[in-house]
Amino acid sequence: MAVYTDVTDEELSAFLAAYDLGDLLAYKGIAEGVENSNFLLHTSRGYFILTLYEKRVAAGELPFFLGLMEHLAARGLNCPQPVKNRKGETLGRLAERPAAIVTFLDGMWIRRPSPTHCAALGQALADFHLAGADFKMTRRNALSVEGWRALFEAAKERADTVQRGLQSAIAAELAHLERSWPRDLPQGVIHADLFPDNVFFLGSRLSGLIDFYFACTDTLAYDVAVCLNAWCFEPDQSYNVTKGRALLQAYAARRKLSDAEWNALPLLARGAATRFLLTRLVDWLEVPPGALVKPKDPLEYHRKLRFHQAVASVRDYGIE
Amino acid sequence: MAVYTDVTDEELSAFLAAYDLGDLLAYKGIAEGVENSNFLLHTSRGYFILTLYEKRVAAGELPFFLGLMEHLAARGLNCPQPVKNRKGETLGRLAERPAAIVTFLDGMWIRRPSPTHCAALGQALADFHLAGADFKMTRRNALSVEGWRALFEAAKERADTVQRGLQSAIAAELAHLERSWPRDLPQGVIHADLFPDNVFFLGSRLSGLIDFYFACTDTLAYDVAVCLNAWCFEPDQSYNVTKGRALLQAYAARRKLSDAEWNALPLLARGAATRFLLTRLVDWLEVPPGALVKPKDPLEYHRKLRFHQAVASVRDYGIE
Repeated sequence: MAVYTDVTDEELSAFLAAYDLGDLLAYKGIAEGVENSNFLLHTSRGYFILTLYEKRVAAGELPFFLGLMEHLAARGLNCPQPVKNRKGETLGRLAERPAAIVTFLDGMWIRRPSPTHCAALGQALADFHLAGADFKMTRRNALSVEGWRALFEAAKERADTVQRGLQSAIAAELAHLERSWPRDLPQGVIHADLFPDNVFFLGSRLSGLIDFYFACTDTLAYDVAVCLNAWCFEPDQSYNVTKGRALLQAYAARRKLSDAEWNALPLLARGAATRFLLTRLVDWLEVPPGALVKPKDPLEYHRKLRFHQAVASVRDYGIE
Repeated sequence: MAVYTDVTDEELSAFLAAYDLGDLLAYKGIAEGVENSNFLLHTSRGYFILTLYEKRVAAGELPFFLGLMEHLAARGLNCPQPVKNRKGETLGRLAERPAAIVTFLDGMWIRRPSPTHCAALGQALADFHLAGADFKMTRRNALSVEGWRALFEAAKERADTVQRGLQSAIAAELAHLERSWPRDLPQGVIHADLFPDNVFFLGSRLSGLIDFYFACTDTLAYDVAVCLNAWCFEPDQSYNVTKGRALLQAYAARRKLSDAEWNALPLLARGAATRFLLTRLVDWLEVPPGALVKPKDPLEYHRKLRFHQAVASVRDYGIE
């Protein structure tokens, strides 16, 4: 959560002159998004979100993300919709950064998801995969199995300072994943980061998905595995079989999973746990002691990984 | 700019149940205000600002600030209006902190005020003083002349690390201010912190004043002096006589200044410069080297102080 870049009223008014959004009435930096600067805009046409893309998001990838949001919104998925300027462009420049305006989406993210929320999430994830089926652009997942070893190399020397034995545990898991990672499951656009803070609800109704900046082309069922990790464990890291069943059944009711996909789920969940364990571990080791920003706990994902390692079959996730 | 406290959807919904604000549709932490956590609320009744008061604001003073906003809004001044819950209260508790909801005010703060903006500010400041004339509550200004020596004591040993000679320069000024500070000028409620980021404009029209958390009972013309410092100097710290004249004439057209007030203005401006020089100096010396948050430059106010020290009479501010 951060606003990295300040925008003056003059700069913003000049930027908005290229849009049909009416008069600027107010704007406020919002504490959302770790990678970018986000502002809430109020214009005489309504409320919008302005994003300035900071350097960690490669400018060359923005057409993929904005194109995907346009594509999904056109197919009726609730997500922020990029606003075009009078030239028909969704991507501009403001304060020396790439910038885009998207529609404001009502809803709140759920700090403690219930099985009802997990079911709604499963359905929305399947709808996202179906709506993305005819999206023409592709983007490689830099954080899939081919990218994990480089993360491990960056962190391994100090991994045991976080927990004794962590280095060898990850090394063994990584070798297993590289050996057995499934290559022939259905592919498509995945969100790849559909944590609760990227899913808005109004009461128990899911009102939209946000933050597509990890979206990429990859194994669809891997996206399910990411969600299983992010939504179906309790604060003590125990797996909640009721939530898992709700998520998986709701997903499968919308988009049928093949036997190969069902059977690969424990392996995909191990991979998903390893991906977040590794990125969190790198972030954890990079933050100087005493820093104000507390990075997310990598060990949360180590405990989830151990659960999946012990799973005998997909039945352990609550599916008959 | 910061959100210090996270609020869950459940806590917030429970808090809002005591208000007639309809359904909660969205809320976002906003990067505004250094002392408190602020959230933009969208409910079915409109947009509002929710403030959680962090510990630097004494809970016992909140009725003064909220009462003042209610008083001013009732007299037609454009400022955030505290929203009452069904019991008629404006102050509640949320996430273990005092909390209040105020109306959302359109407008943007002006990074580079023009003489037109300065005139609008002068008029609004006079209107504020007039509207506050019959406000019954009082609050001592802890950051007036009696409070400056304690700040100096906290900073003086290291003042010369910021600029050689700063300690003795402040010591001499402080002695002068304590000796000559005017005691018999018209008193009333002052804003005491009416910097450009606390004043909203829509184009050249002033749309409202915000952030009353330094408001107190003090010399009205001292508030004018604070604004002269905050609005009428250029980025190179040269005094802009056109802006000063615009501010002072617009103020005086609304609320006549006595000869005693006019004549005291150079001294009050020295005091106002010293007050911000001292608080910025204390903040500057408190921040560890390499911290992410860059404190405001105290020397900006030392240069403003030196300008006022050289002023022969109020004519030097642009007034005939």
